[in-house]
Amino acid sequence: MDGDAYFSVCRERVEAALQEALPPAGQRPARLTGAIRYSVQVGGKRLRPMLCLAAAEAAGGDWRAALPAAVAVELLHTYTLVHDDLPCMDNDLIRRGQPTVHAKYGEALGVLVGDALQALAFEVLVRDAAADPGRARRWVSELALAAGPAGVVGGQVEDVAEAGATDPDTLAFVHQHKTADLFRAALRMGAIGGGASDAVVETLGAYGSHLGLAFQIIDDLLDAPGEGTPDGPPDELTCLTLWTPGEAREHATRHTGQAIDALEGLPGPATPLRDLARRMLQRVV
Amino acid sequence: MDGDAYFSVCRERVEAALQEALPPAGQRPARLTGAIRYSVQVGGKRLRPMLCLAAAEAAGGDWRAALPAAVAVELLHTYTLVHDDLPCMDNDLIRRGQPTVHAKYGEALGVLVGDALQALAFEVLVRDAAADPGRARRWVSELALAAGPAGVVGGQVEDVAEAGATDPDTLAFVHQHKTADLFRAALRMGAIGGGASDAVVETLGAYGSHLGLAFQIIDDLLDAPGEGTPDGPPDELTCLTLWTPGEAREHATRHTGQAIDALEGLPGPATPLRDLARRMLQRVV
Repeated sequence: MDGDAYFSVCRERVEAALQEALPPAGQRPARLTGAIRYSVQVGGKRLRPMLCLAAAEAAGGDWRAALPAAVAVELLHTYTLVHDDLPCMDNDLIRRGQPTVHAKYGEALGVLVGDALQALAFEVLVRDAAADPGRARRWVSELALAAGPAGVVGGQVEDVAEAGATDPDTLAFVHQHKTADLFRAALRMGAIGGGASDAVVETLGAYGSHLGLAFQIIDDLLDAPGEGTPDGPPDELTCLTLWTPGEAREHATRHTGQAIDALEGLPGPATPLRDLARRMLQRVV
Repeated sequence: MDGDAYFSVCRERVEAALQEALPPAGQRPARLTGAIRYSVQVGGKRLRPMLCLAAAEAAGGDWRAALPAAVAVELLHTYTLVHDDLPCMDNDLIRRGQPTVHAKYGEALGVLVGDALQALAFEVLVRDAAADPGRARRWVSELALAAGPAGVVGGQVEDVAEAGATDPDTLAFVHQHKTADLFRAALRMGAIGGGASDAVVETLGAYGSHLGLAFQIIDDLLDAPGEGTPDGPPDELTCLTLWTPGEAREHATRHTGQAIDALEGLPGPATPLRDLARRMLQRVV
């Protein structure tokens, strides 16, 4: 199976598990339940949870064992998007062609949907875990550390505070924590689900971290208004405030190479992860 | 030891453990770390974590075993206060005589401090739990269910949506989920930490739930501008939109009695929990 077909199957698995994990439509308060379901349904490519399942298989395990981790990572990611869109953050009214949660349901619900999704992410990790509490404990630790003040929230704080900053150290901090930490956690949690050794968890985490860094640079390149034609200070910190597009491509290429190099010697199939990293890079080189 | 002395000792234990659990001062981003530490330091009576430690002892266990649960419950509670104070919620600038987090650090930090505290709460539950992952898994489940869409967030959504509503069903929903669910979780998590049987976990949870309901009614009574002199529609749903002060006192007395009745036959000392419920009620009767 090539990478495209593989991830298309993965995506269906993720969608089904996400639907299963959400509060049932109509659960009181119905407005909150509707907004939670909306926030997840308008979601995107399901990249992080697909990587999580692929990591379980690359570790030589069964993707089914990583499903709670995949769902939790996507719920966590969705909460960060809902909060990033708030008026006091990026003030975005549209995401992927649809109204953002606060635009559709009001600002208070925007805050509360994010809050509920974060709690739900942790709940999903332990929901059916009585038979293997050790694995659930490790998942909670990985996700909480990636999500917390030393992870995604820390990255977001520097991003909000330092918009327009051009020092390499701040940029590296924001890319690592706002973006790469959750990719890393997705891969590590998938590996843990797949019963990986500590060494394999580390290896897949390294792939995830480099892939996340490449992803963020590629995202900045694709979002740029037009190469070589900077049009004033950006709203958000992007790597193109620091690098030329050519330099950014070099960094993305290097991180993609490091991600792929990390895949050597895994017990299960690594081809999908390798293909995905290559195809991601091909969008900008 | 009487209840006052007992909880004064409990409080010192909680404060020390909270300090230990927070990100160390100066951790990058320093602004986030400072705001997190501020939000916890301006906190209040530490009622929920003290109840958590007392539950471990009432279950016949060691309070030390419940410390991570106590800290996590207080961090979770603090996050809900920080988000409730936001401009899009209650828009409070002062809490306990000090500027609220968003008033001091800006609205974006208000959102992000709350987000970080929630992640931190779950991280604390699993931090040193490798030796007993089963207990950590149960703690995460209790806290996540109490915090999520069927718990505190659900209660807050109905509270925000239904301010000024006077139907008993909505009031009961808000009191149970916005307030009592976290009291219940604090007691159950303490009991689990203390090695309680399922029956004792249930018993202490029932005490917590009734105590939480009494607490909310008493809080509404103490916040009322002047008994018998309603001064226009309140900003928030309070039981005094539905009940006379006398009726509210009756409900508080009934829940306090039910809380105390639930304490029969526990393996450890229940006197502090009994005293606390009585003293709480004495503030309004």
